[in-house]
Amino acid sequence: MPPADELDFLRWLEETDRPDPSVAVPVGDDAAVVRLGGASVVIAADAIAEGSHFLESDDPRLVGRKALAVNLSDLAAMGAEPVCAVATAALPRGFDLLRAQAMTDGMRALGATHSCPLVGGDTVTHDGGAVLSVTVLGRPMGAAAVLRAGAKPGDVIMITGAIGGSRHGRHLTFDPRLPEARYLVEATSRLAMIDVSDGLLLDLARLTRGLGFRLDAGRIPLHPDASDLDTALEEGEDFELLCAVDAADVARLGAGWAFDATLTAIGQVTETGSILVVDGTEHTVEPRGFRHE
Amino acid sequence: MPPADELDFLRWLEETDRPDPSVAVPVGDDAAVVRLGGASVVIAADAIAEGSHFLESDDPRLVGRKALAVNLSDLAAMGAEPVCAVATAALPRGFDLLRAQAMTDGMRALGATHSCPLVGGDTVTHDGGAVLSVTVLGRPMGAAAVLRAGAKPGDVIMITGAIGGSRHGRHLTFDPRLPEARYLVEATSRLAMIDVSDGLLLDLARLTRGLGFRLDAGRIPLHPDASDLDTALEEGEDFELLCAVDAADVARLGAGWAFDATLTAIGQVTETGSILVVDGTEHTVEPRGFRHE
Repeated sequence: MPPADELDFLRWLEETDRPDPSVAVPVGDDAAVVRLGGASVVIAADAIAEGSHFLESDDPRLVGRKALAVNLSDLAAMGAEPVCAVATAALPRGFDLLRAQAMTDGMRALGATHSCPLVGGDTVTHDGGAVLSVTVLGRPMGAAAVLRAGAKPGDVIMITGAIGGSRHGRHLTFDPRLPEARYLVEATSRLAMIDVSDGLLLDLARLTRGLGFRLDAGRIPLHPDASDLDTALEEGEDFELLCAVDAADVARLGAGWAFDATLTAIGQVTETGSILVVDGTEHTVEPRGFRHE
Repeated sequence: MPPADELDFLRWLEETDRPDPSVAVPVGDDAAVVRLGGASVVIAADAIAEGSHFLESDDPRLVGRKALAVNLSDLAAMGAEPVCAVATAALPRGFDLLRAQAMTDGMRALGATHSCPLVGGDTVTHDGGAVLSVTVLGRPMGAAAVLRAGAKPGDVIMITGAIGGSRHGRHLTFDPRLPEARYLVEATSRLAMIDVSDGLLLDLARLTRGLGFRLDAGRIPLHPDASDLDTALEEGEDFELLCAVDAADVARLGAGWAFDATLTAIGQVTETGSILVVDGTEHTVEPRGFRHE
């Protein structure tokens, strides 16, 4: 979960945003959408910093890979296919050229896998550790980009893969759920979606903003690396897709699902409240992830 | 001028780049150009870091302004008008919320001036100073984006404004030459252009890559903040437009020029060589800016 000051800043950014008419989807979703020459352009920008999102000792290929992967995960959550990426790197003065090259190689290799060429960027040096910032452009897979908003009471909450324990290594090696996103876009009549980057509970609260949810603890898929459910619900960097779909679509979705990662129904969207059902008992959970018994 | 390791990394990036067919202008210009749904999208990404491009004590509004301005300068050099921007900020842990807000205000205010709304981004915290990374999208002002390449021997080299001494404050307050760029695009039959970010000599070498130049020292417009010509030629962050135009266009260009910033012919593109003429005497200059007498 991001520290409070980042969330305070994010809230201020959203509250003070005055969207331009050319902006179809402004600040506050996984990515923005602008109109450009008749096309919808989806734009996501995420940064990762040494000591916070990776360690100096981490394989630089995986660090570069992650810088792009977190952005591709945002595109997946928007139901958008990648077009290209640009990257900036702030590197320590006198940085190791081989390390910078390995970061680039890792980024390019993942980009090649997802048809997302690295087309430009900038390198600067400074007194701190490495900070990699990537912006990806995409185009909607369907008729329009998929937003966080749009869930309705009664919708089924579904999640790809399993959550928890990402810090043991998966945060560097996860596969952005782009193929899964394409299937979800094509196989649903209505879709609200987000990627789980700041913890399932917090991101679910974002997905169901203005509404509520009722999660079934027993159905939440825990990764073998997860320590326990409570921790997994509040950990970040799972980079799984979390979505709300019409209950009528669920059977069809499951029947056609043909990916290694699972797709699991874990609860329902409700009118109000934040409920986790554990062994038949309802618990109210705080959207930021701290449970109040 | 950037340190050697940044230039080494940049050279490696360009040498190992394998452009995708969808990329009209790959790594190595002021910005990339990709095709998206029939539109040409110009993409520039530049980062600025505390201690390198600004100081912790600098007015945070001007710091945020600069992060966007350097990118708008890249768009100007590409002959592209802004569409939108995204920004990521790596900020010190426990950062000052008011400072982050002021940075955003400065960015938004300049964006409003140039019809470039800030549509999204990301904030992370780390152990170092602030690093702001901005990506701007643009569309060509003319039929196509303006490249660095394309100059021909005999072309006249022109520069907007004056150079030198930017570090005394102008590096934080300069106006991106977007209106001037539009005029240059519209009033020339052929145009090669770059913005002066790494020093006039180095950026001129980039503009005349594979060719040569002959600069008239007496015509180079020095800013009142400049200490002397030699320093001014090698200093960075002027953010003026440096271009090569057909000699037949020069008189017309000057006649219609109606901006506060001057437009000055400072030399010619030649077949080969890097010549600075001082008081009638020819000196060979090293493209990186170190003069050999």
